[in-house]
Amino acid sequence: MANNASAGLTVDNKSTPEGLDGVIAASTRLSLVDGEAGRLVIAGYAVEDIAPKARFEELAYLLLNGRLATEPELTKFSAELAARRELPEATLLVLGEAARRSVPVIDALVMAVPTLLTSDGGDYQQSSLRLIAVLPTIVGSYWRLLKSQQPVAARADLSHAAHYLYQVFGTEPAPERTRALETYINTVCDHGFNASTFTARVIISTHSDVISAITGAIGALKGPLHGGAPGPALDMVLEIGRADRAESVIRAKLAGGERLMGFGHRVYRVRDPRADVLAAAAEKFYQTGGDRDLYQLARDVELVALRVLAEQKPGRRLDTNVEFYTALLLHGLGLPSVLFTPTFAVGRVLGWTAHCLEQLRDGRLIRPQSRYIGPEHSNFVAG
Amino acid sequence: MANNASAGLTVDNKSTPEGLDGVIAASTRLSLVDGEAGRLVIAGYAVEDIAPKARFEELAYLLLNGRLATEPELTKFSAELAARRELPEATLLVLGEAARRSVPVIDALVMAVPTLLTSDGGDYQQSSLRLIAVLPTIVGSYWRLLKSQQPVAARADLSHAAHYLYQVFGTEPAPERTRALETYINTVCDHGFNASTFTARVIISTHSDVISAITGAIGALKGPLHGGAPGPALDMVLEIGRADRAESVIRAKLAGGERLMGFGHRVYRVRDPRADVLAAAAEKFYQTGGDRDLYQLARDVELVALRVLAEQKPGRRLDTNVEFYTALLLHGLGLPSVLFTPTFAVGRVLGWTAHCLEQLRDGRLIRPQSRYIGPEHSNFVAG
Repeated sequence: MANNASAGLTVDNKSTPEGLDGVIAASTRLSLVDGEAGRLVIAGYAVEDIAPKARFEELAYLLLNGRLATEPELTKFSAELAARRELPEATLLVLGEAARRSVPVIDALVMAVPTLLTSDGGDYQQSSLRLIAVLPTIVGSYWRLLKSQQPVAARADLSHAAHYLYQVFGTEPAPERTRALETYINTVCDHGFNASTFTARVIISTHSDVISAITGAIGALKGPLHGGAPGPALDMVLEIGRADRAESVIRAKLAGGERLMGFGHRVYRVRDPRADVLAAAAEKFYQTGGDRDLYQLARDVELVALRVLAEQKPGRRLDTNVEFYTALLLHGLGLPSVLFTPTFAVGRVLGWTAHCLEQLRDGRLIRPQSRYIGPEHSNFVAG
Repeated sequence: MANNASAGLTVDNKSTPEGLDGVIAASTRLSLVDGEAGRLVIAGYAVEDIAPKARFEELAYLLLNGRLATEPELTKFSAELAARRELPEATLLVLGEAARRSVPVIDALVMAVPTLLTSDGGDYQQSSLRLIAVLPTIVGSYWRLLKSQQPVAARADLSHAAHYLYQVFGTEPAPERTRALETYINTVCDHGFNASTFTARVIISTHSDVISAITGAIGALKGPLHGGAPGPALDMVLEIGRADRAESVIRAKLAGGERLMGFGHRVYRVRDPRADVLAAAAEKFYQTGGDRDLYQLARDVELVALRVLAEQKPGRRLDTNVEFYTALLLHGLGLPSVLFTPTFAVGRVLGWTAHCLEQLRDGRLIRPQSRYIGPEHSNFVAG
């Protein structure tokens, strides 16, 4: 390989798969994604154990510090987060201008986050706390501005999860609503080296800053091959409309070569463990509120879809995935589908920042090679 | 490996080096970085052939289209670029606000670029042209705002390189100044999978948008391990001040364990071919203008540094690198060192966008694996 300049190279380059599929880019203590066994471990804890029970602040401390907080540590940490919820004027200015142009929410997020640059003087830890704390305020404020409502002032007396719902809806949420949202953001807070997390690590590996790294991560997240297409699973349920239409609509879609949104995953060969957590959270939540008819319809559609998929695609593992239950749960909370990806970011920003801090501690500059396949000896004659 | 879910994997994960050093992430037709032979080929053409002679627009067409333009194609393409130089109001608003807070130039760039989102309705090709065309206007306008000067209106009658100097200085540049700047941005327009280019490819691999990808790339570029520390090479020359002090200052630095900035490179084992191109451009330029005393001093310092390095670090290849001549050339053009990295971005944005378009054509989602090294079976008890 002419373009391989590394000394001590031990990898057979010719066999490296495109997209780095299966290639290990670095080590991590943050999460273990075991696709073969359908297992997700977050800093030591099975996602199904920790996500439905923990406060988001507990998980945040765990991922940022490598262990659970003691009670006094957690109180102090929660207060530190709560103190960073307010938006700087520059951020509000950008959000207001974006709202006047009806910029999509996820794009407004990419615009707003860089305005936080220089707030923390480049301190990686401080910037991480600020980002985690302020993302709910950015999303909520922008959503209200888009609807020509005034953003509500940040409040330090609410939990992180409650504060996000407060920022979006302008009223203090009931405990079961907070718990449902909290279980969701806990569940999606980290997931190995997905494209957005990997983006954050590549950027911070140059010793740039956490704000720039997370701006890049949000840019990756918005891509439809990553987190940017969360609506369709719910759209299918709404399109079907009545349980007795499920079978004919689903069969027609499959006959037309369409993929059923909400089923299957690139990494998991068995059921995605996050799907179980969110299915249970949705079931619990819909007992207390939300549109129970829609919930029942979604579960009916799911059963039909799984039966028809098993019949038509035998041997393929096409279980209900995390997007399906995400849509159901967030819709139940009254969040419109344009807020699904931003809400995902509200949870995942924890993983992104924790990966940045880990990369800064343990990692080195991420700079792979490319394989040049163009001509090498063209002759340039100036015009 | 428990966390390896890929089918058909052929890479021995245990031997994958951290930082993906030497790992091939994808194929490209854009540039060949041959570190062993000290060779850089840009879409078929040796950098020393094409960079000093070509117009930037010729290189841009080449990288975006895979071949040189015919004369009519080049005229049309140049006009298309020139028509996209103006800043949207939202961009000016963000720049004005940033200037009031004296935000560093490279941070202002990270803030300004996302304001271009939605301008091109997500059309990858259009966004690429817009970014290439508008980056000089952003940098120049912001620099003027920082100095409390009015930005100058975009002009379509200047070449791309001339327009950048016009935006910064507010006056039409002499041809030899334009040529010097043009040779520089041509020389740095692409360079394999460096961290910023790789960032852009990871982001766009999710089928996000080019604006988000380049925002992430600038965030990576600003890191001091990448493009974010270009000043020190020149600082050393200025610190030495007089040729007869060079030897003592350099020996003192090496004795104190300091690295000499401006010498050596991670990839090139022999002389970086870009250094030769820029050395020649600097020599030519300083015959017509700039501070000739500083130029002579820099060359004297270089000779002493190379002699002392050869004596004290025998066997290490520590040639004068691209940063040394970049600093000399850009300083000669009157650009302050805070504009060095942004000027680098003005050139490299061409490679970034070309890599985005290539990744969209040929690539797949970039999603490597991580190696989990934390605990797996901790027991969570809710507080």
